[in-house]
Amino acid sequence: MTTYLQMLSTVTTDGLEMKLVKQKMPEPKPHEIVVKVEATPINPSDHGVMFGWADISKATSSGEGADRVLKAPLAPGGLSRMKARLDQDLPVGNEGAGTVVAAGSDEYAQSLMGKRVAVMGGGMYAGYRAVPAMSALPLPEDATARDGASCFVNPLTALCFIETMRGEDHSAIVHTAAASNLGQMLNRICQADGVDIVNIVRRQEQVDILKELGAKYIVNSSDDDFHMQLTDAIHATGATLGFDAIGGGDTASNILLAMEAAAARTPGAYSIYGSIKHKQVYSYGSLDFGPTILNRAYGMAWGVGGWLLPNFLAKAGMETAVRLRKRVADELHTTFKSHYTDEISLSDALDADIVKRYNAKKTGEKFLINPQL
Amino acid sequence: MTTYLQMLSTVTTDGLEMKLVKQKMPEPKPHEIVVKVEATPINPSDHGVMFGWADISKATSSGEGADRVLKAPLAPGGLSRMKARLDQDLPVGNEGAGTVVAAGSDEYAQSLMGKRVAVMGGGMYAGYRAVPAMSALPLPEDATARDGASCFVNPLTALCFIETMRGEDHSAIVHTAAASNLGQMLNRICQADGVDIVNIVRRQEQVDILKELGAKYIVNSSDDDFHMQLTDAIHATGATLGFDAIGGGDTASNILLAMEAAAARTPGAYSIYGSIKHKQVYSYGSLDFGPTILNRAYGMAWGVGGWLLPNFLAKAGMETAVRLRKRVADELHTTFKSHYTDEISLSDALDADIVKRYNAKKTGEKFLINPQL
Repeated sequence: MTTYLQMLSTVTTDGLEMKLVKQKMPEPKPHEIVVKVEATPINPSDHGVMFGWADISKATSSGEGADRVLKAPLAPGGLSRMKARLDQDLPVGNEGAGTVVAAGSDEYAQSLMGKRVAVMGGGMYAGYRAVPAMSALPLPEDATARDGASCFVNPLTALCFIETMRGEDHSAIVHTAAASNLGQMLNRICQADGVDIVNIVRRQEQVDILKELGAKYIVNSSDDDFHMQLTDAIHATGATLGFDAIGGGDTASNILLAMEAAAARTPGAYSIYGSIKHKQVYSYGSLDFGPTILNRAYGMAWGVGGWLLPNFLAKAGMETAVRLRKRVADELHTTFKSHYTDEISLSDALDADIVKRYNAKKTGEKFLINPQL
Repeated sequence: MTTYLQMLSTVTTDGLEMKLVKQKMPEPKPHEIVVKVEATPINPSDHGVMFGWADISKATSSGEGADRVLKAPLAPGGLSRMKARLDQDLPVGNEGAGTVVAAGSDEYAQSLMGKRVAVMGGGMYAGYRAVPAMSALPLPEDATARDGASCFVNPLTALCFIETMRGEDHSAIVHTAAASNLGQMLNRICQADGVDIVNIVRRQEQVDILKELGAKYIVNSSDDDFHMQLTDAIHATGATLGFDAIGGGDTASNILLAMEAAAARTPGAYSIYGSIKHKQVYSYGSLDFGPTILNRAYGMAWGVGGWLLPNFLAKAGMETAVRLRKRVADELHTTFKSHYTDEISLSDALDADIVKRYNAKKTGEKFLINPQL
């Protein structure tokens, strides 16, 4: 093999275009390894780089196999939001796993030859990928590439929610879109670590998924008494930190309202300016692209903000990252097990009909790309 | 004198009622002093406790002198926001100054007898007030009660904005409603301390006030090219922290947008998820009671939250508080000088016509209550 295919995403004033381009097989530098990518998941966090603010409901594709091209118009306001990436060919795919097929001269790089590793290197929607050997996570002997494909984004995000909770002096958390792959991992972590979690979902089917997992606090936002249920659960757990995957609308505001109402049930914790304890909701996703609406009826000790795994890890430092990665490897078959409903090729991933399916982010559906197909 | 008048604010399901009640002259405990209140300002931060979510445009008053009563209906949604204070008679007035007319047996309390002091004790809209001697700030010999009336709220708020900036690793700030009494103090502090400040105002008259003060960066939100002006000023100063007095609407969002646009001008500081440096806007006031609208088009490293002086001081600790209070006393006639346009009695302060005037919070207008009138 002297070439491989790589997926690129480009936004121009005309809209979004995604295609596969032929790249020359990389030569590893002394500290690098070349990984033959065998499994790479499509995470919600990949959609941001893949599609940006394009209107995927209007996406079309043309061509077959390596020549397939996906096009989509930009959503209203999309262009001004994507100025920073205009006309750049961006490689996509945050993480994946595969086999080390070439290694640089450094001893550690050489020691990984032939091993199966997981990588969070960006540009993983590609047949091959050269990365620093130090950045790869060697997988247990019995793990397939499929087993190790999602070692980083969801596991580290879930673990770092708990790190954030401890670092910012909270003792329990609220999570929205709680039946997701990430949400299920988070529940397993919370159960293992004795942390209370309030799960917010939108449908009974999602309540059932979490019940089966043994989740204690599950609140369905479609119920009429949602706000009271949420306040009760927050009062019972003492949660003052929320992680919100939805982003737009009044979800964050409603969580803060319930936290404030829960605080008001405890005499003494209240001043005329509202409860004293800081209440925080982090938005880590944008299932709803609309504006976030905050009615501010929760005193003065509140915050809302963006949360991004790489930014958190950069602040947390190397020691934390090493500790968390070790836990992921140790619990790969239990806590951090991912389920995939579809395994597709790079070309399939640019088929407009398939794109619309995985872009729907349906609970229980998760797509894996195998670039070797 | 065996009694004095105290202003109380009460919210019931029927609406807001404010009145003056006769109180018995307090006996100081050993560590306390009794202050004859001679000057106490009406700050925007007092309005919250005085009026809450009442509709002051519909306020009426009845009675004369000590019998005057102010009533106002609640604004839509006001009742649910004020549950925590329902049916409670709340004393009002955060700060003020006056003469020590009685003191407890402790040596320090005794040492203040006859002295003029400033106090931030709450319930200052009253003829007299017993407070711990340690909490009082003795005024310089040449300072009148009027000079010392506003020693705490605005001066400490302005100083604590700068403390927040340093503590959270920012190097310049953006401030809205920047021509206010607080905004002017903040500009004097920034000039003295070499901190860049971007002043956002709404009218040319406010631009002129700040120009005369020597402010370097003034942006008028009524100008057509406001967003570009703001981005330029933020780029020039490197401001990644804003303090917003307005609260409702898209002010905070627009500041974050401009910070993100400014960051995008610097190569390398950008990732596909937006600029890396955390951008923060604190809402410390609610000139606009409407919801805060965040369009989130500024990457993932952003935050919006409430900011309240007592909460900040509680976290900052005693050493910081002592240092800042000393600076206020030292610079009372310069940096922290307040100007008052009206001096009124407690009874005047409940006259509906006068209430509507000071509730308008017009730039340049500031009311002082003299409870001895």
